Amino acid sequence: MTNWQALIREQIEKERAAATQLLQEWVREPSVQGEERSIQEKIAQRLHAMGMEVDLWVMGGEELLKHPYFVSPRSEFSGSPNVVGVWKGTGGGRSIILNGHVDVVPAGDPAQWSHDPFSGEIEEGKLYGRGSTDMKGGNLSSLLAIQVLQALGIRLKGDVIFQSVVEEESGGAGTLAAILRGYKADAALIPEPTNMKIFPKQQGSMWFRLTVKGRSAHGGTRYEGVSAIEKSMQVVTAISKLEKERNDRIVDPLYAKLPIPIPINLGVIEGGKWPSSVADLVKLEGRMGVAPGEKMEAAKREMEEALAALAHDDPWFAEHPVELEWFGARWVPGDVGEDHPLMEILQDQFLKVTGERAVVEASPWGTDGGLLTTLADTPAIIVGPGTTAVAHYPNESVELDEVFRCAEIFALTLMEWCGYETK
Amino acid sequence: MTNWQALIREQIEKERAAATQLLQEWVREPSVQGEERSIQEKIAQRLHAMGMEVDLWVMGGEELLKHPYFVSPRSEFSGSPNVVGVWKGTGGGRSIILNGHVDVVPAGDPAQWSHDPFSGEIEEGKLYGRGSTDMKGGNLSSLLAIQVLQALGIRLKGDVIFQSVVEEESGGAGTLAAILRGYKADAALIPEPTNMKIFPKQQGSMWFRLTVKGRSAHGGTRYEGVSAIEKSMQVVTAISKLEKERNDRIVDPLYAKLPIPIPINLGVIEGGKWPSSVADLVKLEGRMGVAPGEKMEAAKREMEEALAALAHDDPWFAEHPVELEWFGARWVPGDVGEDHPLMEILQDQFLKVTGERAVVEASPWGTDGGLLTTLADTPAIIVGPGTTAVAHYPNESVELDEVFRCAEIFALTLMEWCGYETK
Repeated sequence: MTNWQALIREQIEKERAAATQLLQEWVREPSVQGEERSIQEKIAQRLHAMGMEVDLWVMGGEELLKHPYFVSPRSEFSGSPNVVGVWKGTGGGRSIILNGHVDVVPAGDPAQWSHDPFSGEIEEGKLYGRGSTDMKGGNLSSLLAIQVLQALGIRLKGDVIFQSVVEEESGGAGTLAAILRGYKADAALIPEPTNMKIFPKQQGSMWFRLTVKGRSAHGGTRYEGVSAIEKSMQVVTAISKLEKERNDRIVDPLYAKLPIPIPINLGVIEGGKWPSSVADLVKLEGRMGVAPGEKMEAAKREMEEALAALAHDDPWFAEHPVELEWFGARWVPGDVGEDHPLMEILQDQFLKVTGERAVVEASPWGTDGGLLTTLADTPAIIVGPGTTAVAHYPNESVELDEVFRCAEIFALTLMEWCGYETK
Repeated sequence: MTNWQALIREQIEKERAAATQLLQEWVREPSVQGEERSIQEKIAQRLHAMGMEVDLWVMGGEELLKHPYFVSPRSEFSGSPNVVGVWKGTGGGRSIILNGHVDVVPAGDPAQWSHDPFSGEIEEGKLYGRGSTDMKGGNLSSLLAIQVLQALGIRLKGDVIFQSVVEEESGGAGTLAAILRGYKADAALIPEPTNMKIFPKQQGSMWFRLTVKGRSAHGGTRYEGVSAIEKSMQVVTAISKLEKERNDRIVDPLYAKLPIPIPINLGVIEGGKWPSSVADLVKLEGRMGVAPGEKMEAAKREMEEALAALAHDDPWFAEHPVELEWFGARWVPGDVGEDHPLMEILQDQFLKVTGERAVVEASPWGTDGGLLTTLADTPAIIVGPGTTAVAHYPNESVELDEVFRCAEIFALTLMEWCGYETK
């Protein structure tokens, strides 16, 4: 019997230098929102060269823009095509989507970086740059897994659908567009930076805006007014109480290690215009975590009820209810049963490759996996190289060894999941 | 014996139409900060025509700009001359300053006004417009008092110093400049809109800015950060406790009717940049009331101590102390004894003119009187037509009857205070 693992590892070693260079090229593409065309065209060419059926398209149209899960600050995507490459299986196997995003968040202040944010420089085994860990490193693991299988002459029975999407950082419009274009599979892997932990469940999230009202007055007679800043404190307390109630309900052992599995974060506060006037309006903006199995509408309702309950103790809120608005980003939660066959396969390959048992957890943030699981009937599991601790921050980097370990695990997983034939 | 009161009232009636027109002209001058030259030159001409020694000057210079009580967002005042007119007494009497500001706050959104903000339109006995109540109406009362005495051939023994100052709305640099130019007197009247209540004491105030620190983190793992918004709530509570302590100490019966004699108002809050990030910084801006007899430095120290005390209960504040900054506007408190002879004279004239006893209170806001009392050894009493309820708001207006009643009270008060001779 062929020792596929040894052959795959050997093949990865052979391709390591070229693959590292490819990752550097990807990181050197500053594919921030609206600027993804260049990298996407290069990826499309590569997929084509690998014999895949390639689909590069600019998303848009009513169905997408009016979809209830469509979230984006823009509606025009000509600088941001989506790319999908399908490696057709020989038939009779399970299909899989390997999904990853190429959009990166802005580099921020370059002065805070020790390397140029788009240099792709390598130092002590780490490749530096915006997007290295989130998530071009993971994308490389996926691509390399396919490349290695091809190089070894392995034909998978199920289709492998490699998706290089845009707009993940703004709420998933790229993956949504791919779903609406008809792409689905029997399962999906998304190599977001989990530090190679396996996340069958992901927290969803939604942004909200609260408008708290007061009544203006001169600061010298502030008792003639009602301070929206003071009223906001009651609102903050109510939100904190709601957060506690929601989290007390969560008994899933996957969440056991997290102090607050589904936090409600109040991230922005702004109100009042003049130091010696009583503030008559305060706006609070935040992010509400949604539990993996929870309906977003149910979470919204709980927020509405918590705000309405303020009126019970304070007649001010009865007359001046806090306004609630859901705006901006939204990530659908995802929930794949821990007994899903792909979970078992993944954990087995992880053990084979690393000699250690995989850590299975629930993710504290949303990914495009929620959309795949919920809308495309494609159970999505998140596992990939890199850590979120450095994502979105200066000096983002990814450990190259981990990228190649992930490629090895993915190659073996594809064989087990899709089934295979050899020449 | 001549019934001066009847003659004064009669003379005011004669001059009423012309005086009303003059107030309209003043209100039609949009003398917002930096735009006071036009009205000041007209006032200077008028004072000159009344035989007064007129002093129109543009303030400036090191002594002013470096003075510890100098507060202004600007240091260049060429568009904003100060005007003083002195009606010399015949000698042997007490002098008095009649101080009033011509600067007005901006009109704000004209759509919220039922009349044009600078129309000076009259409806049901009220004259409408920005500055009508704060405080061109009061300035007219002062000017008319002098005019009427002159028309009746009365010569006062003490000097009457009519001051038309700028920059009151920004903290009193105009009056400070007049003081530094050498103007002082045995007492002062300032017809700010007190609704004809007599304020021998005025609350001072100072603006402050607090910077509350947190530590950023992703909202999905918000427990890894420290929310500056949550920390701000502790700061708001501490400020509220300090306000209570400071007000519990105030036993002055003049403050008996005020729920919070010297409030600390938090007027502005701003912090955080992203709904799904933990806010790492919140800024709070506010106004601290200072008691009439209190030193501003002592009030500042109490604020510093209250903020320092946060560290006792929460080590976060020990490592990340709240930053305190005193910025922007500042009004020195004022305190004239209720037994001051001008108080008695004023109350007597009020009773004569209105048939009612004057209401004596402490003002909940600062005026330029604090500077006169503290720096120029000129005890200043605040009493004038109009109400602060409409000052700084759309549809500001002043009741014309009250303006003329005030002129009558002032004319009689000048005679009693300065002493008089008749031709």
